[in-house]
Amino acid sequence: MSGNTFGKLFTVTTFGESHGLALGAIVDGCPPGLEISESDLQIDLDRRKPGQSKFTTQRKEADQVKILSGVFEGKTTGTPIGLLIENTDQRSKDYSNIKDLFRPAHADYTYMHKYGVRDYRGGGRSSARETAMRVAAGAIAKKYLKVFHGVEIQGYLSQLGPIKIDSVDWNEIDNNPFFCPDASKIAEMEQFMKELKGNSVGAKITVVAKGVKPGLGEPIFDRLDADIAHAMMGINAVKGVEIGAGFDSVEQLGTEHRDEITPDGFLSNNAGGVLGGLSTGQDIIAHLALKPTSSLHIPGKSVDVHGNEVEVVTKGRHDPCVGIRATPIAEAMLALTVIDHLLRDRGQNGGVEHNIPVIPSEK
Amino acid sequence: MSGNTFGKLFTVTTFGESHGLALGAIVDGCPPGLEISESDLQIDLDRRKPGQSKFTTQRKEADQVKILSGVFEGKTTGTPIGLLIENTDQRSKDYSNIKDLFRPAHADYTYMHKYGVRDYRGGGRSSARETAMRVAAGAIAKKYLKVFHGVEIQGYLSQLGPIKIDSVDWNEIDNNPFFCPDASKIAEMEQFMKELKGNSVGAKITVVAKGVKPGLGEPIFDRLDADIAHAMMGINAVKGVEIGAGFDSVEQLGTEHRDEITPDGFLSNNAGGVLGGLSTGQDIIAHLALKPTSSLHIPGKSVDVHGNEVEVVTKGRHDPCVGIRATPIAEAMLALTVIDHLLRDRGQNGGVEHNIPVIPSEK
Amino acid sequence: MSGNTFGKLFTVTTFGESHGLALGAIVDGCPPGLEISESDLQIDLDRRKPGQSKFTTQRKEADQVKILSGVFEGKTTGTPIGLLIENTDQRSKDYSNIKDLFRPAHADYTYMHKYGVRDYRGGGRSSARETAMRVAAGAIAKKYLKVFHGVEIQGYLSQLGPIKIDSVDWNEIDNNPFFCPDASKIAEMEQFMKELKGNSVGAKITVVAKGVKPGLGEPIFDRLDADIAHAMMGINAVKGVEIGAGFDSVEQLGTEHRDEITPDGFLSNNAGGVLGGLSTGQDIIAHLALKPTSSLHIPGKSVDVHGNEVEVVTKGRHDPCVGIRATPIAEAMLALTVIDHLLRDRGQNGGVEHNIPVIPSEK
Amino acid sequence: MSGNTFGKLFTVTTFGESHGLALGAIVDGCPPGLEISESDLQIDLDRRKPGQSKFTTQRKEADQVKILSGVFEGKTTGTPIGLLIENTDQRSKDYSNIKDLFRPAHADYTYMHKYGVRDYRGGGRSSARETAMRVAAGAIAKKYLKVFHGVEIQGYLSQLGPIKIDSVDWNEIDNNPFFCPDASKIAEMEQFMKELKGNSVGAKITVVAKGVKPGLGEPIFDRLDADIAHAMMGINAVKGVEIGAGFDSVEQLGTEHRDEITPDGFLSNNAGGVLGGLSTGQDIIAHLALKPTSSLHIPGKSVDVHGNEVEVVTKGRHDPCVGIRATPIAEAMLALTVIDHLLRDRGQNGGVEHNIPVIPSEK
Repeated sequence: MSGNTFGKLFTVTTFGESHGLALGAIVDGCPPGLEISESDLQIDLDRRKPGQSKFTTQRKEADQVKILSGVFEGKTTGTPIGLLIENTDQRSKDYSNIKDLFRPAHADYTYMHKYGVRDYRGGGRSSARETAMRVAAGAIAKKYLKVFHGVEIQGYLSQLGPIKIDSVDWNEIDNNPFFCPDASKIAEMEQFMKELKGNSVGAKITVVAKGVKPGLGEPIFDRLDADIAHAMMGINAVKGVEIGAGFDSVEQLGTEHRDEITPDGFLSNNAGGVLGGLSTGQDIIAHLALKPTSSLHIPGKSVDVHGNEVEVVTKGRHDPCVGIRATPIAEAMLALTVIDHLLRDRGQNGGVEHNIPVIPSEK
Repeated sequence: MSGNTFGKLFTVTTFGESHGLALGAIVDGCPPGLEISESDLQIDLDRRKPGQSKFTTQRKEADQVKILSGVFEGKTTGTPIGLLIENTDQRSKDYSNIKDLFRPAHADYTYMHKYGVRDYRGGGRSSARETAMRVAAGAIAKKYLKVFHGVEIQGYLSQLGPIKIDSVDWNEIDNNPFFCPDASKIAEMEQFMKELKGNSVGAKITVVAKGVKPGLGEPIFDRLDADIAHAMMGINAVKGVEIGAGFDSVEQLGTEHRDEITPDGFLSNNAGGVLGGLSTGQDIIAHLALKPTSSLHIPGKSVDVHGNEVEVVTKGRHDPCVGIRATPIAEAMLALTVIDHLLRDRGQNGGVEHNIPVIPSEK
Repeated sequence: MSGNTFGKLFTVTTFGESHGLALGAIVDGCPPGLEISESDLQIDLDRRKPGQSKFTTQRKEADQVKILSGVFEGKTTGTPIGLLIENTDQRSKDYSNIKDLFRPAHADYTYMHKYGVRDYRGGGRSSARETAMRVAAGAIAKKYLKVFHGVEIQGYLSQLGPIKIDSVDWNEIDNNPFFCPDASKIAEMEQFMKELKGNSVGAKITVVAKGVKPGLGEPIFDRLDADIAHAMMGINAVKGVEIGAGFDSVEQLGTEHRDEITPDGFLSNNAGGVLGGLSTGQDIIAHLALKPTSSLHIPGKSVDVHGNEVEVVTKGRHDPCVGIRATPIAEAMLALTVIDHLLRDRGQNGGVEHNIPVIPSEK
Repeated sequence: MSGNTFGKLFTVTTFGESHGLALGAIVDGCPPGLEISESDLQIDLDRRKPGQSKFTTQRKEADQVKILSGVFEGKTTGTPIGLLIENTDQRSKDYSNIKDLFRPAHADYTYMHKYGVRDYRGGGRSSARETAMRVAAGAIAKKYLKVFHGVEIQGYLSQLGPIKIDSVDWNEIDNNPFFCPDASKIAEMEQFMKELKGNSVGAKITVVAKGVKPGLGEPIFDRLDADIAHAMMGINAVKGVEIGAGFDSVEQLGTEHRDEITPDGFLSNNAGGVLGGLSTGQDIIAHLALKPTSSLHIPGKSVDVHGNEVEVVTKGRHDPCVGIRATPIAEAMLALTVIDHLLRDRGQNGGVEHNIPVIPSEK
């Protein structure tokens, strides 16, 4: 209710500021019996963590997660899982010059209006550093979905500024610093990033869940696609979310858009795996638009906390394209959305016998 | 939790199927002291109701709403407001031929998988008829926002299939059957609709909230933009949601995207009125992509409930472009989202004294 | 969140004032496939309804409930169930003399402070008339629990003022106007009620759920007993709730209180069927203390809305012992609590295989 | 939703087992601007912590709490407050002998049925050790209520087994190891405890909130008294909750029970500060019945996880009367309930102007 909890039955509540002592989360509602260890969480944390290439922030954080509760003899017990990551590489003095300024396009101004105060060190709570805990919690959800339901969740960078990918090679994604599934675009992306020189750029991320059974979602307000939109738009810097054909639907005719069905499979997937707010059993596909980060080395016009005109230049260490590291975050948020709906559906419809044909995902 | 309630402090819970006896809603959490009557709600209900032009479904429903509780001597009392609309023009036999079929791109298949049963008459609960109650409830929220906070919420059709608007004349919107703000495009839209001949088409809706104070939203998961995305993607047929620059952000540089600030106002509004998940005080702007409706008079491939191959043609009365009537629905959902965040913020930050400069919405 | 919704997965949201047009409820989250009709609900509504004996209010209400949605071909569909009861026997002018007064021990004063306004006609929303919808919704829960889980819920009057029952005959309960399970006390109770002459008296209700499987409840805050306490203390006029041995536990030693276990069954049930906040499989037993109603024909000291000293006498028609009609309400609230926990547990632990011995309820 | 979160706007989510690495909590929704430090929390933690007298468990825990986030320059920022206490004095091997047994009257049996597994070391999550985090979080709520609203919350032991207090001296409470407000009873209590010799005993706690403004609570289900009942019954070992006159109401006549009102004050407080589920402005008074702890050194009959008959004797270190240390826990839970309702009311009714006379708490 207070904004820092995600989910209804499988809930994640997080705390922590960019330059505070630690980040933490409580994962509540994870069913018992899942084998889980810190190393399972570390895999995705390492994919997200900063300082791994010259294209992300140079802040060095080990992002070593500790599991403090909820796991006994290697398995979840059904009780809440406490997670903790200590911050180690804060450089708070980098921010002293913006203490009284509002960076344009940053949460500085809005946090001050909401709370009357802000922790200006590294963006405080508004920093994307907070997403580390989402990734840690999401790793638990991902493992549960895979082990008990055969669901696989994976994302990739589908566009970096003007550079669009041409093809998706799922095995390429973790081989390059961009989470790009098209090896032929890497050099171009590297060149583009080098030329940014203190500026930043937007990106598009695509994230897919394979193997979700049909019928998940809670009409009419908590539709699966509505909750995915909530999850994705809640990621820092996201300005748009599409399911399946997304904005292309606007110009489509009904005969083009509808995914015809045969006993052997659906003939297309414009729906992106969701109809009437419920999963169809096809791949669930979401696209995210991420804006360029607001922390630039290029001066911009703004005001200070007293209303005076100022010029702002951000120092500190920042991602020139926040979209790059957003891939594991988007995967985590999709996993958290799907597992929550899986538990909700099991609660509300778990006792019903069905005898409905299951259409294969694709012919 | 069960899916049919929207909001946290200002909640709307709805019931009713397309061909059931009635539609109803309970609006809970409306503050006391708001003058409200059935005629206030009827204005928006009449904007949404079917059968008003040849471009929407020909089903005739008066959509007369009754207020059954929560209003005493013309004002809200703070107790729940019961709303009821009786259905009068059902033609359930139109649907007997699709009783055992799954229409492609329709919720038929997914509802059967979720519940093991479906009310096939007019789409049952998955019908857009359900949105009448959202509009009724949203009218209460709109009036509260306007009277007590000076917030105005209005939407329009920004694209119909391939036809994009060139300009926005706020006074034109309610003068044509498309909610189109550009009078120069009406004839073209009418011609396009005539040529659909049993096919359907997508549309794009834009909805704007003016006058929202800075600082609304609950980081980090219940950001204002995340909750707008949830609200909008939860409208029937919506496949994409953008805030401000939306997907255009992908190709923007940071220097292009950031909305610079001067003491006289923001210099642009790529943010769409939301930064860090909190309102900036600028216009809140959301764009929605609506898919073409799935109910076509043109045959399509599908299967029946036994898994047999079939050809489906939809009879009955349907909207050839569901996007047209979505404008008042989108307004209602935006109003419900903003009022809920206003009450949440008042609860959590209502006692804090601020002394922060307020930047005008636009220079 | 706004106070008029009960439950998390099986939710009941109600509206309606004592002298408004109608009472209504939305039951959301009822699983599909339950055979239900208005007559199933009417049984409990008739048990609760006023005017059935000279010991309850003489207001005559048929309390005929209509099911407006969520049921198709005689069975629930999983979509929300809309319920409506029209008010027919309001006599609002009975209340004109207390329009500006605060009755002592009544919600008059507190409602005015909360909302700044109150519907004084018959107590408005604070009237026990509102509980009709709880009983209607509870009847759905009771039927689901019985049909699908073999759970039986029944309550009785265990004390009327100073008159305590000596024994429980489950078949006697519905044979007398007091819901008293001890036929030998009826005459005494009738005599006591006659002698009240405009005064009122308290009562104690006991309510029992038989056949609940072990392990329901959500530690640590949403324990089953905590949620039962919430449900019961939320009934009008309730001032105390006990589970099992309740306040007798204070003077017990551990060796007296603990319910020893044998393979053939528990040897006692001081726990009242709940340990560690989770059901044990034994009978769940709750006791409720109900205060005497505040609406008396005997003058009392109070103030008016301007703060002036006044003397209040209540006219209108009232229950001299609200505890009497509370039995079906307590049953409904217990049923709603148990079904909600059943669905929550199914969601969160539905996939786990157990191999734990089940101890019979009683040796 | 998953059970480990308390509250709606001011929420507390906790994790941690008795013999795990640490206990933790996230306090979300605390308004900004409250001066708070670890020492504020330590006061109540020290009152609750074990090993302080021979009448509580001899486990030695410093219970040093760390604030990890949400506080900047000594004041809350409105963002979530992360709290951590490391466990230091676990003796898990004490529990190896009960690994496969179910202690009678303990959560052993029910946890196994819910989760299919349990952390048997010290009771795992079902241990009262978990309540340390409630006390830490409650200390924040208490300070907020005191500083910004003048509300004082204090509890005391009103009965130990058969020994009832005769009078309340608020200054005596923290002078003895029982939280007893009647110095004349201390010696008797000490003697009683000494004679328990491996047995345990129940207790009654009373907790009072002074200075709560009239009108808090959310009818009809989230009444203030209903939520207090939920909070109190959710404390380990609690079997009964009363508000005001509680079970004495059963035998009262309406003329005895009703608290008459004069312009100078209420003439009594049978209501315990709550009417119609809303605060009256009088002292809010709740009584709790706590059962004797189940961990006894005296053998009892039970079964093991295979269903075999066994005799159980608990080793380890335990409280012979869990009621003693429950006083600060009950204070914490009352504070958390009141602050949550204060924020909810501010959200939903914060904008309404009242002009209603305020009646003094007592003449």
